Amino acid sequence: MSTNNRTKNLKLKQSRYSKNKKHQEGSRSSQSKPGKKPQAMQLVKKPPVRVSFLGGLNEIGKNITVIECENDMIIVDCGMAFPDGDMLGVDLVIPDFTYIEQNVDRVRGIVLTHGHEDHIGGLPFLLAKINVPIYGTPLTLGLVENKLREHSLINQANLNVVNSGGTITLGCMEIKFIHVNHSIPDSVAFAIKTPGGTLVHTGDFKIDCTPISGDTIDLSSFARVGDDGVLALLAESTNAQRAGYTRTEQMVSESLDNLFKKAEKYRIIIATFASNVNRVQQIINCAEKYGRKVAFSGRSMVNYMEVAVKLGYLKMPANILIDIDSLKKYLPEQVVLVTTGSQGEPMSALSRMAYSDHRKVMVGEGDFIIISANPIPGNEKTVGNVVDELLKRGCKVIYESMYDVHVSGHACQEELKLMHRLVRPKYFIPVHGEQKHLRKHAELAEFLGMDKKNICIADNGKTVEICDDHMKVVGSVPAGKVFVDGLGVGDVGSIVLRDRKHLGQDGLIIIVASLDVYDGHVISGPDIVSRGFVYVRESESLLDEVRKLALGILEDCAEKNVHEWGVIKNRLREEIAKLISQRTRRTPMILPILQEV
Amino acid sequence: MSTNNRTKNLKLKQSRYSKNKKHQEGSRSSQSKPGKKPQAMQLVKKPPVRVSFLGGLNEIGKNITVIECENDMIIVDCGMAFPDGDMLGVDLVIPDFTYIEQNVDRVRGIVLTHGHEDHIGGLPFLLAKINVPIYGTPLTLGLVENKLREHSLINQANLNVVNSGGTITLGCMEIKFIHVNHSIPDSVAFAIKTPGGTLVHTGDFKIDCTPISGDTIDLSSFARVGDDGVLALLAESTNAQRAGYTRTEQMVSESLDNLFKKAEKYRIIIATFASNVNRVQQIINCAEKYGRKVAFSGRSMVNYMEVAVKLGYLKMPANILIDIDSLKKYLPEQVVLVTTGSQGEPMSALSRMAYSDHRKVMVGEGDFIIISANPIPGNEKTVGNVVDELLKRGCKVIYESMYDVHVSGHACQEELKLMHRLVRPKYFIPVHGEQKHLRKHAELAEFLGMDKKNICIADNGKTVEICDDHMKVVGSVPAGKVFVDGLGVGDVGSIVLRDRKHLGQDGLIIIVASLDVYDGHVISGPDIVSRGFVYVRESESLLDEVRKLALGILEDCAEKNVHEWGVIKNRLREEIAKLISQRTRRTPMILPILQEV
Repeated sequence: MSTNNRTKNLKLKQSRYSKNKKHQEGSRSSQSKPGKKPQAMQLVKKPPVRVSFLGGLNEIGKNITVIECENDMIIVDCGMAFPDGDMLGVDLVIPDFTYIEQNVDRVRGIVLTHGHEDHIGGLPFLLAKINVPIYGTPLTLGLVENKLREHSLINQANLNVVNSGGTITLGCMEIKFIHVNHSIPDSVAFAIKTPGGTLVHTGDFKIDCTPISGDTIDLSSFARVGDDGVLALLAESTNAQRAGYTRTEQMVSESLDNLFKKAEKYRIIIATFASNVNRVQQIINCAEKYGRKVAFSGRSMVNYMEVAVKLGYLKMPANILIDIDSLKKYLPEQVVLVTTGSQGEPMSALSRMAYSDHRKVMVGEGDFIIISANPIPGNEKTVGNVVDELLKRGCKVIYESMYDVHVSGHACQEELKLMHRLVRPKYFIPVHGEQKHLRKHAELAEFLGMDKKNICIADNGKTVEICDDHMKVVGSVPAGKVFVDGLGVGDVGSIVLRDRKHLGQDGLIIIVASLDVYDGHVISGPDIVSRGFVYVRESESLLDEVRKLALGILEDCAEKNVHEWGVIKNRLREEIAKLISQRTRRTPMILPILQEV
Repeated sequence: MSTNNRTKNLKLKQSRYSKNKKHQEGSRSSQSKPGKKPQAMQLVKKPPVRVSFLGGLNEIGKNITVIECENDMIIVDCGMAFPDGDMLGVDLVIPDFTYIEQNVDRVRGIVLTHGHEDHIGGLPFLLAKINVPIYGTPLTLGLVENKLREHSLINQANLNVVNSGGTITLGCMEIKFIHVNHSIPDSVAFAIKTPGGTLVHTGDFKIDCTPISGDTIDLSSFARVGDDGVLALLAESTNAQRAGYTRTEQMVSESLDNLFKKAEKYRIIIATFASNVNRVQQIINCAEKYGRKVAFSGRSMVNYMEVAVKLGYLKMPANILIDIDSLKKYLPEQVVLVTTGSQGEPMSALSRMAYSDHRKVMVGEGDFIIISANPIPGNEKTVGNVVDELLKRGCKVIYESMYDVHVSGHACQEELKLMHRLVRPKYFIPVHGEQKHLRKHAELAEFLGMDKKNICIADNGKTVEICDDHMKVVGSVPAGKVFVDGLGVGDVGSIVLRDRKHLGQDGLIIIVASLDVYDGHVISGPDIVSRGFVYVRESESLLDEVRKLALGILEDCAEKNVHEWGVIKNRLREEIAKLISQRTRRTPMILPILQEV
């Protein structure tokens, strides 16, 4: 499929960049030439490159890196993260954009490595604040376009398609888009040539020598960039703890084929990541081979597939796709249902099926269900529960590592080593991962012979300065977690979360009373209302005790002419908390509300 | 160490049972003798055995099984479970004891397989309701004794030590305690001979041919029981999904030795399960070899070790144990600290160290930390976070499967097969595990040649009847989850949990107003109080809107002579919810509180 076909459906303001644009070869390579006077070189000192991490370090997700040289600033990716279990009620987590806002007139653009949420999911929230040109490959921008349309930001967006292999210039920086393999097509790494030297940012990648579609990662471009001299490598660390090689996506084809044979008389339901276009392609290929129709379930699955088909990344044989509503017209052995929910997400299509809560699909003994994904750390339990529910309904379930129905999208240790050897950087910063991943990747670089002082384990909020003669942390920038809850962005902070946690753990007791405005005596109440504390009908005597205690305190305060509400409320809180703790060893939130009448 | 030594320190009301008590060999074995008239046999129809599951099926933990024959009832184990993430504020989960209470005069006793919380943790709550004699091995009862002392139940408790190999008679049932290997010493399985036939309940087990202390699982007793004929096998399923064999605990010795060498100049901190006496023994052996002192950290670690030392299950070389307060008197390379927290539990010793919250131990670059345990499903994330924090503090951390510092305590598939082959039961019920484990174990039995109709995947609350000629579910018994929160047992139920979840996710808005008792007009308020919803200072205008809306509704109701509070409150709830949802897309709990003045 030609580049033209891919992009002509994409209605974007496009700046085209030739795949073969001539590189202005870096001044840095001249360094290694013999015969130059070192003294003369020191006079023309190169400007430093500064790298600030607003996300993606010591966490999985929310990847965003700011790179500066001279007066120019670019942003690599703008991702979101899913909330941890203790971020109650939070829908998603986005980066703190303060640093970017403060430097808006120096921002030359955002370059995107690929279309996963942890790399593009923060864009709408950044664009709602400042409008910056965005550069990405066709599929990536297709997904961004969808996202911005949902947020009603598409009209003002400045989206620029760059094909992998292309180069763009943003201020003093020249950025080459280098094709890599990953679990979504059209992924790229960046070679960023700056006056201070060249940086390579791998984005997410793996080395797949037999990919399902598209080419193997562009090893020769990495090699050439390496030949020209690389100041620093920023490489992803997701699988830095795993020895060996990530297996090729082709592996999955074989396993799926076997399972399709085995599932002969069953309806097949396969759950996978909505963005894994290649995986879905393999499922479609299998379906075609075994004469089954394909239906999609789950909003994000449908959305991704629409974009992938439109842009030519997913090849859909004629008449194979059916609507989920037509499933009933076919025998079980005539269909495959491809669905979201491989992580056991409570609202996802697969979870709904498991808990008999799906409006259109009822599962049972006639179903052969394949979970073509591994649980992301933290999701093991929810995935396990979904599997159990499906098993209880009599389904056959293929999950986790039972069969080879999933391969990772990230480079394991041997692939990381190859990347280091191709790029041969002077300095190295491991990115994308928790501390354990970053450390392991740093150790790997050391093992490859890199000097420990040339490796920097940074952190979100740190600015690292890189020059020919040093790499060091030179400062801090704001880089917290901003919580999105419903329409609110950033209005849920640590205090609100602390209250939610308290309320969620222990519930609350409200004490309401109307006091006489003149003498402070109780006119009405105190009424005791509790929620999430005890089952009230069975605890009336305890709540009665609370009421009596509250009344006693209020009257005592009135007698003693204590009229300052802060003081009265404090006494209520403390003494009632003590009573409750004695009786129940619990610590509900205690909320006195007084009114003057 | 002799049995006498083990038990003489245990101040219990002990009924002694000889290890060599002569068995009354089962009538059932006569069946296989040739020459008997089958007709005559059918006349003397054996009574059925009934097995009711109050816990342990479709869940991990809370193991408790009721076995009945004729007019007698015994209980195998009485465990607790830890709450799932959605059981907010719940401390622990215990079985519903209704069925036992209803049949208290038929209960002959509780027999315990071993001293883990998921097998004995429910005892204090059962004993608080009914007093039943308890039978267990010395270590198991030592741990039970501690537990009952904490709950002030020790004085009335009827605890009876039975050594493994011993047999007791409870009503019409004769119960043989058969030694098994597991991750706590003194674990047993039961062969329960009833007039209806013999049942074998394995408890938790593995087959360790080279255990750290004590004997290999008593294979010959299982074989003899099998020779005599077994009606039904109830076998644990925890590792039914794992192929092969669980490795011997000895493996860990070698790994620990290597790590002790590697950690030469470091202080060593090892986190493991407090109950894993054999693991701690290996650590102590290593410490002795390398001339290090040993300190314990964590309340449960200290408690377990006290009991284990007292009863002779842990051999402590002279002068090796030091108090945690004396750690500072030694050089790092002279000590080992053994601690709880291998599951990343927030309040555990290791977590506190990781988050610099431990009163006595500060960790840093001089520490070599070994997590000698695998994360239990659901704990992966918290364990990972603790590891990350320790790494950030510069500690060396050995975790998860990096080195062989942990082996499971449960039988893998090959061991399960051996158990089936030794016992050769007519019927099989897989126990202890989620649906996926039970299914896998059932498949394994089928693979061994068992007829599918002789296998029953039961569920908590089901009663299974087993006779020579059938096994079937014959009824239901109450068997829910009872939540313990602080001192309250069972007073937190689904309504309270639903409220906690709602409060935790979205927070709440309280509307308080005092109304004129005569005409319903607002005398004071409405005041708006919110918690866990938005950061109030930044949302004053929204809360103002809510106040105005509430005032409007209250006055409108007064005008229209609507005085029924249920109606007024409903209007407040509905209209305010609508406003909030429009403005924020959130759904806080809305709590109108009205007072008459």
